[in-house]
Amino acid sequence: MPIIHVYAFERSLEQKREIAQGITEVTCKAYDVSPEIVTVYIFDVPKENAAHAGVLASEAEGKP
Amino acid sequence: MPIIHVYAFERSLEQKREIAQGITEVTCKAYDVSPEIVTVYIFDVPKENAAHAGVLASEAEGKP
Amino acid sequence: MPIIHVYAFERSLEQKREIAQGITEVTCKAYDVSPEIVTVYIFDVPKENAAHAGVLASEAEGKP
Amino acid sequence: MPIIHVYAFERSLEQKREIAQGITEVTCKAYDVSPEIVTVYIFDVPKENAAHAGVLASEAEGKP
Amino acid sequence: MPIIHVYAFERSLEQKREIAQGITEVTCKAYDVSPEIVTVYIFDVPKENAAHAGVLASEAEGKP
Amino acid sequence: MPIIHVYAFERSLEQKREIAQGITEVTCKAYDVSPEIVTVYIFDVPKENAAHAGVLASEAEGKP
Repeated sequence: MPIIHVYAFERSLEQKREIAQGITEVTCKAYDVSPEIVTVYIFDVPKENAAHAGVLASEAEGKP
Repeated sequence: MPIIHVYAFERSLEQKREIAQGITEVTCKAYDVSPEIVTVYIFDVPKENAAHAGVLASEAEGKP
Repeated sequence: MPIIHVYAFERSLEQKREIAQGITEVTCKAYDVSPEIVTVYIFDVPKENAAHAGVLASEAEGKP
Repeated sequence: MPIIHVYAFERSLEQKREIAQGITEVTCKAYDVSPEIVTVYIFDVPKENAAHAGVLASEAEGKP
Repeated sequence: MPIIHVYAFERSLEQKREIAQGITEVTCKAYDVSPEIVTVYIFDVPKENAAHAGVLASEAEGKP
Repeated sequence: MPIIHVYAFERSLEQKREIAQGITEVTCKAYDVSPEIVTVYIFDVPKENAAHAGVLASEAEGKP
Protein backbone atom coordinates (compact mmCIF):
# COMPACT_ATOMS: atom_id res chain seq x y z
CA MET A 1 0.00 0.00 0.00
CA PRO A 2 2.38 2.69 -1.19
CA ILE A 3 1.39 6.23 -0.23
CA ILE A 4 2.96 9.18 -1.97
CA HIS A 5 2.93 12.73 -0.62
CA VAL A 6 3.62 15.57 -3.05
CA TYR A 7 4.61 18.87 -1.43
CA ALA A 8 4.63 21.74 -3.94
CA PHE A 9 3.20 25.14 -4.75
CA GLU A 10 -0.45 24.96 -5.78
CA ARG A 11 -1.09 23.81 -9.33
CA SER A 12 -4.10 23.63 -11.62
CA LEU A 13 -6.55 20.77 -11.48
CA GLU A 14 -5.19 19.56 -14.81
CA GLN A 15 -1.68 19.41 -13.41
CA LYS A 16 -2.82 17.61 -10.26
CA ARG A 17 -4.64 15.08 -12.41
CA GLU A 18 -1.52 14.53 -14.49
CA ILE A 19 0.90 14.14 -11.60
CA ALA A 20 -1.43 11.82 -9.67
CA GLN A 21 -1.89 9.58 -12.68
CA GLY A 22 1.79 9.66 -13.61
CA ILE A 23 3.10 8.93 -10.13
CA THR A 24 0.64 6.08 -9.75
CA GLU A 25 1.79 4.52 -13.03
CA VAL A 26 5.45 4.90 -12.11
CA THR A 27 4.83 3.38 -8.69
CA CYS A 28 2.97 0.40 -10.10
CA LYS A 29 5.72 -0.27 -12.61
CA ALA A 30 8.70 0.26 -10.31
CA TYR A 31 7.23 -1.50 -7.29
CA ASP A 32 5.17 -4.12 -9.12
CA VAL A 33 1.89 -3.33 -7.41
CA SER A 34 -1.62 -2.74 -8.72
CA PRO A 35 -3.02 0.81 -8.87
CA GLU A 36 -5.81 -0.10 -6.43
CA ILE A 37 -3.38 0.04 -3.51
CA VAL A 38 -1.63 3.27 -4.48
CA THR A 39 -2.68 6.55 -2.87
CA VAL A 40 -1.34 9.99 -3.78
CA TYR A 41 -1.85 13.01 -1.55
CA ILE A 42 -0.98 16.49 -2.85
CA PHE A 43 -0.19 19.25 -0.38
CA ASP A 44 -0.48 22.79 -1.72
CA VAL A 45 2.23 24.84 -0.06
CA PRO A 46 1.67 28.63 -0.23
CA LYS A 47 4.75 30.53 -1.41
CA GLU A 48 4.94 32.37 1.88
CA ASN A 49 5.21 28.99 3.63
CA ALA A 50 8.20 27.69 1.71
CA ALA A 51 11.78 28.81 1.98
CA HIS A 52 14.82 27.98 -0.06
CA ALA A 53 18.23 29.08 1.24
CA GLY A 54 16.47 30.80 4.12
CA VAL A 55 14.34 33.08 1.95
CA LEU A 56 10.56 32.69 1.63
CA ALA A 57 9.57 31.81 -1.94
CA SER A 58 7.07 34.68 -1.84
CA GLU A 59 9.96 37.06 -1.37
CA ALA A 60 12.52 35.52 -3.67
CA GLU A 61 13.18 37.07 -7.04
CA GLY A 62 14.06 33.96 -8.97
CA LYS A 63 11.59 31.19 -9.56
CA PRO A 64 12.68 28.23 -7.49
CA MET B 1 5.71 12.22 23.13
CA PRO B 2 3.67 10.42 20.48
CA ILE B 3 2.45 12.61 17.63
CA ILE B 4 -0.31 11.41 15.36
CA HIS B 5 -1.04 12.86 11.93
CA VAL B 6 -4.45 12.19 10.40
CA TYR B 7 -4.68 12.76 6.65
CA ALA B 8 -8.27 12.68 5.41
CA PHE B 9 -10.97 14.61 3.60
CA GLU B 10 -12.30 17.49 5.67
CA ARG B 11 -14.75 16.57 8.40
CA SER B 12 -17.05 18.45 10.74
CA LEU B 13 -15.82 19.91 14.00
CA GLU B 14 -17.77 17.21 15.85
CA GLN B 15 -15.96 14.50 13.92
CA LYS B 16 -12.57 16.10 14.49
CA ARG B 17 -13.32 16.33 18.19
CA GLU B 18 -14.28 12.66 18.26
CA ILE B 19 -11.27 11.34 16.35
CA ALA B 20 -8.80 13.46 18.33
CA GLN B 21 -10.22 12.25 21.61
CA GLY B 22 -10.46 8.65 20.47
CA ILE B 23 -6.97 8.44 19.02
CA THR B 24 -5.54 10.01 22.16
CA GLU B 25 -7.28 7.43 24.36
CA VAL B 26 -6.15 4.55 22.16
CA THR B 27 -2.57 5.85 22.16
CA CYS B 28 -2.48 6.24 25.94
CA LYS B 29 -3.80 2.73 26.44
CA ALA B 30 -1.68 0.98 23.80
CA TYR B 31 1.54 2.84 24.53
CA ASP B 32 1.07 3.36 28.26
CA VAL B 33 1.55 7.12 28.22
CA SER B 34 -0.39 9.99 29.76
CA PRO B 35 -2.61 12.16 27.51
CA GLU B 36 -0.55 15.25 28.32
CA ILE B 37 2.21 14.10 25.98
CA VAL B 38 -0.02 13.07 23.07
CA THR B 39 -0.56 15.46 20.17
CA VAL B 40 -2.91 14.88 17.24
CA TYR B 41 -2.71 16.92 14.04
CA ILE B 42 -5.48 16.65 11.45
CA PHE B 43 -4.74 17.53 7.84
CA ASP B 44 -7.77 18.31 5.69
CA VAL B 45 -7.03 16.99 2.22
CA PRO B 46 -9.25 18.47 -0.52
CA LYS B 47 -10.77 15.83 -2.81
CA GLU B 48 -8.93 17.29 -5.78
CA ASN B 49 -5.66 16.72 -3.91
CA ALA B 50 -6.12 13.01 -3.27
CA ALA B 51 -5.92 10.19 -5.76
CA HIS B 52 -6.71 6.53 -5.45
CA ALA B 53 -5.67 4.20 -8.27
CA GLY B 54 -4.44 7.23 -10.18
CA VAL B 55 -7.80 9.04 -10.22
CA LEU B 56 -8.43 12.22 -8.23
CA ALA B 57 -11.11 11.67 -5.59
CA SER B 58 -12.92 14.73 -6.90
CA GLU B 59 -13.34 12.94 -10.21
CA ALA B 60 -14.03 9.42 -9.01
CA GLU B 61 -17.58 8.10 -9.08
CA GLY B 62 -17.39 5.80 -6.11
CA LYS B 63 -16.82 7.03 -2.60
CA PRO B 64 -13.37 5.93 -1.52
CA MET C 1 -9.06 6.94 2.38
CA PRO C 2 -7.85 8.22 5.73
CA ILE C 3 -4.17 7.64 6.43
CA ILE C 4 -2.80 7.92 9.92
CA HIS C 5 0.87 8.38 10.77
CA VAL C 6 2.01 7.57 14.29
CA TYR C 7 5.35 9.06 15.30
CA ALA C 8 6.63 7.62 18.59
CA PHE C 9 9.49 5.79 20.26
CA GLU C 10 9.66 2.16 19.20
CA ARG C 11 7.16 -0.17 20.84
CA SER C 12 6.61 -3.91 21.00
CA LEU C 13 4.78 -5.78 18.28
CA GLU C 14 1.88 -6.26 20.68
CA GLN C 15 1.64 -2.51 21.24
CA LYS C 16 1.84 -1.77 17.53
CA ARG C 17 -0.93 -4.29 16.90
CA GLU C 18 -3.08 -2.67 19.56
CA ILE C 19 -2.61 0.92 18.43
CA ALA C 20 -3.16 0.05 14.74
CA GLN C 21 -6.38 -1.76 15.54
CA GLY C 22 -7.58 0.90 17.97
CA ILE C 23 -6.87 3.85 15.71
CA THR C 24 -8.58 2.10 12.81
CA GLU C 25 -11.69 1.48 14.90
CA VAL C 26 -11.77 5.07 16.15
CA THR C 27 -11.33 6.40 12.63
CA CYS C 28 -14.11 4.25 11.22
CA LYS C 29 -16.49 5.36 13.96
CA ALA C 30 -15.61 9.05 13.97
CA TYR C 31 -15.39 9.45 10.21
CA ASP C 32 -18.02 6.89 9.21
CA VAL C 33 -15.79 4.91 6.88
CA SER C 34 -15.12 1.21 6.47
CA PRO C 35 -11.85 -0.27 7.75
CA GLU C 36 -10.86 -1.35 4.24
CA ILE C 37 -9.91 2.23 3.35
CA VAL C 38 -7.99 3.04 6.52
CA THR C 39 -4.21 2.78 6.57
CA VAL C 40 -2.00 3.27 9.63
CA TYR C 41 1.75 3.80 9.34
CA ILE C 42 3.92 3.69 12.47
CA PHE C 43 7.24 5.49 12.49
CA ASP C 44 9.71 4.35 15.15
CA VAL C 45 11.64 7.40 16.28
CA PRO C 46 14.91 6.61 18.09
CA LYS C 47 15.31 8.53 21.36
CA GLU C 48 18.38 10.29 20.02
CA ASN C 49 16.24 11.59 17.16
CA ALA C 50 13.56 13.24 19.27
CA ALA C 51 13.84 16.39 21.32
CA HIS C 52 11.50 18.00 23.76
CA ALA C 53 12.26 21.51 24.98
CA GLY C 54 15.49 21.39 22.99
CA VAL C 55 16.90 18.31 24.73
CA LEU C 56 17.28 14.96 22.99
CA ALA C 57 15.09 12.32 24.63
CA SER C 58 18.13 10.07 24.87
CA GLU C 59 19.74 12.64 27.12
CA ALA C 60 16.77 13.75 29.16
CA GLU C 61 16.39 12.50 32.69
CA GLY C 62 12.64 12.50 32.92
CA LYS C 63 10.48 10.33 30.73
CA PRO C 64 8.60 12.56 28.34
CA MET D 1 19.51 18.29 1.01
CA PRO D 2 17.95 18.73 4.44
CA ILE D 3 14.23 19.46 4.41
CA ILE D 4 12.52 20.85 7.46
CA HIS D 5 8.78 20.74 8.07
CA VAL D 6 7.31 23.10 10.65
CA TYR D 7 3.85 22.19 11.91
CA ALA D 8 2.29 24.98 13.97
CA PHE D 9 -0.67 27.32 14.27
CA GLU D 10 -0.65 30.00 11.61
CA ARG D 11 1.73 32.90 12.19
CA SER D 12 2.36 36.27 10.60
CA LEU D 13 4.48 36.67 7.51
CA GLU D 14 7.15 38.30 9.66
CA GLN D 15 7.25 35.27 11.95
CA LYS D 16 7.41 32.86 9.05
CA ARG D 17 10.27 34.86 7.56
CA GLU D 18 12.10 34.74 10.87
CA ILE D 19 11.66 31.03 11.54
CA ALA D 20 12.60 30.06 7.98
CA GLN D 21 15.77 32.12 8.12
CA GLY D 22 16.66 30.97 11.63
CA ILE D 23 16.10 27.28 10.99
CA THR D 24 18.13 27.47 7.80
CA GLU D 25 21.05 29.09 9.63
CA VAL D 26 20.91 26.55 12.43
CA THR D 27 20.78 23.69 9.93
CA CYS D 28 23.74 24.99 7.96
CA LYS D 29 25.80 25.38 11.11
CA ALA D 30 24.85 22.12 12.78
CA TYR D 31 24.98 19.97 9.67
CA ASP D 32 27.75 21.80 7.83
CA VAL D 33 25.83 22.38 4.63
CA SER D 34 25.29 25.43 2.46
CA PRO D 35 21.94 27.25 2.56
CA GLU D 36 21.32 26.50 -1.12
CA ILE D 37 20.39 22.92 -0.30
CA VAL D 38 18.15 23.66 2.68
CA THR D 39 14.37 23.80 2.23
CA VAL D 40 11.86 24.77 4.91
CA TYR D 41 8.15 24.06 4.56
CA ILE D 42 5.69 25.60 7.02
CA PHE D 43 2.33 23.95 7.57
CA ASP D 44 -0.35 26.15 9.09
CA VAL D 45 -2.46 23.95 11.34
CA PRO D 46 -5.87 25.43 12.23
CA LYS D 47 -6.63 25.29 15.97
CA GLU D 48 -9.59 23.02 15.32
CA ASN D 49 -7.22 20.56 13.64
CA ALA D 50 -4.81 20.19 16.54
CA ALA D 51 -5.37 18.39 19.80
CA HIS D 52 -3.31 18.21 22.94
CA ALA D 53 -4.29 15.67 25.60
CA GLY D 54 -7.30 14.74 23.48
CA VAL D 55 -8.80 18.24 23.40
CA LEU D 56 -8.91 20.36 20.25
CA ALA D 57 -6.83 23.53 20.64
CA SER D 58 -9.83 25.54 19.49
CA GLU D 59 -11.72 24.30 22.52
CA ALA D 60 -8.98 24.38 25.14
CA GLU D 61 -8.92 27.19 27.64
CA GLY D 62 -5.21 27.36 28.26
CA LYS D 63 -2.76 28.32 25.60
CA PRO D 64 -0.82 25.25 24.60
CA MET E 1 10.89 23.05 -5.26
CA PRO E 2 8.58 20.03 -5.24
CA ILE E 3 9.38 17.40 -2.65
CA ILE E 4 7.92 13.93 -2.92
CA HIS E 5 7.73 11.45 -0.05
CA VAL E 6 7.20 7.79 -0.89
CA TYR E 7 5.98 5.62 1.98
CA ALA E 8 6.13 1.92 1.16
CA PHE E 9 7.56 -1.43 2.20
CA GLU E 10 11.28 -1.66 1.57
CA ARG E 11 12.32 -2.31 -2.00
CA SER E 12 15.54 -3.16 -3.80
CA LEU E 13 18.04 -0.52 -4.80
CA GLU E 14 17.05 -1.08 -8.43
CA GLN E 15 13.41 -0.37 -7.61
CA LYS E 16 14.28 2.73 -5.60
CA ARG E 17 16.38 3.99 -8.49
CA GLU E 18 13.50 3.41 -10.88
CA ILE E 19 10.79 5.06 -8.77
CA ALA E 20 12.98 8.07 -7.96
CA GLN E 21 13.79 8.63 -11.62
CA GLY E 22 10.24 8.04 -12.77
CA ILE E 23 8.60 10.29 -10.18
CA THR E 24 11.08 13.04 -10.97
CA GLU E 25 10.30 12.83 -14.69
CA VAL E 26 6.56 12.84 -14.07
CA THR E 27 6.86 15.81 -11.73
CA CYS E 28 8.94 17.82 -14.18
CA LYS E 29 6.46 17.16 -16.98
CA ALA E 30 3.25 17.71 -15.01
CA TYR E 31 4.48 20.72 -13.06
CA ASP E 32 6.77 22.21 -15.69
CA VAL E 33 9.86 22.39 -13.50
CA SER E 34 13.45 21.36 -14.02
CA PRO E 35 14.76 18.19 -12.33
CA GLU E 36 17.32 20.20 -10.35
CA ILE E 37 14.62 21.40 -7.97
CA VAL E 38 12.89 18.06 -7.45
CA THR E 39 13.69 15.96 -4.39
CA VAL E 40 12.36 12.48 -3.69
CA TYR E 41 12.58 10.88 -0.25
CA ILE E 42 11.74 7.19 0.17
CA PHE E 43 10.63 5.92 3.57
CA ASP E 44 10.97 2.18 4.09
CA VAL E 45 8.06 1.09 6.25
CA PRO E 46 8.55 -2.30 7.95
CA LYS E 47 5.56 -4.63 7.53
CA GLU E 48 5.00 -4.68 11.27
CA ASN E 49 4.65 -0.89 11.16
CA ALA E 50 1.89 -0.74 8.57
CA ALA E 51 -1.74 -1.68 9.00
CA HIS E 52 -4.52 -1.99 6.51
CA ALA E 53 -8.07 -2.41 7.84
CA GLY E 54 -6.65 -2.53 11.35
CA VAL E 55 -4.37 -5.52 10.74
CA LEU E 56 -0.58 -5.22 10.65
CA ALA E 57 0.79 -6.10 7.21
CA SER E 58 3.20 -8.52 8.90
CA GLU E 59 0.21 -10.49 10.16
CA ALA E 60 -2.08 -10.27 7.17
CA GLU E 61 -2.41 -13.27 4.91
CA GLY E 62 -3.09 -11.52 1.66
CA LYS E 63 -0.59 -9.21 0.03
CA PRO E 64 -1.92 -5.70 0.26
CA MET F 1 2.62 23.13 20.20
CA PRO F 2 4.98 23.51 17.24
CA ILE F 3 6.42 20.26 15.92
CA ILE F 4 9.42 20.30 13.63
CA HIS F 5 10.46 17.41 11.41
CA VAL F 6 14.01 17.35 10.08
CA TYR F 7 14.60 15.08 7.08
CA ALA F 8 18.29 14.66 6.31
CA PHE F 9 21.10 12.15 5.91
CA GLU F 10 22.16 10.64 9.22
CA ARG F 11 24.36 12.82 11.40
CA SER F 12 26.36 12.35 14.57
CA LEU F 13 24.79 12.57 18.00
CA GLU F 14 26.60 15.85 18.53
CA GLN F 15 25.06 17.30 15.38
CA LYS F 16 21.58 16.07 16.29
CA ARG F 17 21.96 17.65 19.71
CA GLU F 18 22.99 20.92 18.13
CA ILE F 19 20.24 21.09 15.54
CA ALA F 20 17.53 20.11 18.03
CA GLN F 21 18.66 22.78 20.47
CA GLY F 22 19.09 25.41 17.76
CA ILE F 23 15.76 24.81 16.07
CA THR F 24 13.99 24.89 19.42
CA GLU F 25 15.57 28.23 20.29
CA VAL F 26 14.73 29.71 16.89
CA THR F 27 11.15 28.47 17.15
CA CYS F 28 10.67 29.91 20.63
CA LYS F 29 12.01 33.28 19.53
CA ALA F 30 10.22 33.51 16.19
CA TYR F 31 6.90 32.14 17.40
CA ASP F 32 7.00 33.46 20.95
CA VAL F 33 6.43 30.14 22.65
CA SER F 34 8.13 28.38 25.54
CA PRO F 35 10.50 25.46 24.83
CA GLU F 36 8.28 23.09 26.80
CA ILE F 37 5.80 22.91 23.93
CA VAL F 38 8.34 22.49 21.13
CA THR F 39 9.09 19.02 19.78
CA VAL F 40 11.74 18.20 17.18
CA TYR F 41 11.81 14.88 15.33
CA ILE F 42 14.82 13.96 13.21
CA PHE F 43 14.42 11.46 10.40
CA ASP F 44 17.63 9.82 9.19
CA VAL F 45 17.26 9.31 5.44
CA PRO F 46 19.70 6.77 3.96
CA LYS F 47 21.49 8.04 0.86
CA GLU F 48 19.93 5.32 -1.23
CA ASN F 49 16.51 6.61 -0.19
CA ALA F 50 16.99 10.19 -1.33
CA ALA F 51 17.11 11.50 -4.87
CA HIS F 52 17.96 14.89 -6.25
CA ALA F 53 17.25 15.56 -9.93
CA GLY F 54 16.15 11.95 -10.28
CA VAL F 55 19.44 10.43 -9.13
CA LEU F 56 19.81 8.59 -5.82
CA ALA F 57 22.22 10.40 -3.51
CA SER F 58 24.08 7.12 -3.04
CA GLU F 59 24.86 7.14 -6.74
CA ALA F 60 25.53 10.83 -7.30
CA GLU F 61 29.10 12.03 -7.63
CA GLY F 62 28.71 15.47 -6.15
CA LYS F 63 27.68 16.03 -2.58
CA PRO F 64 24.22 17.55 -2.59
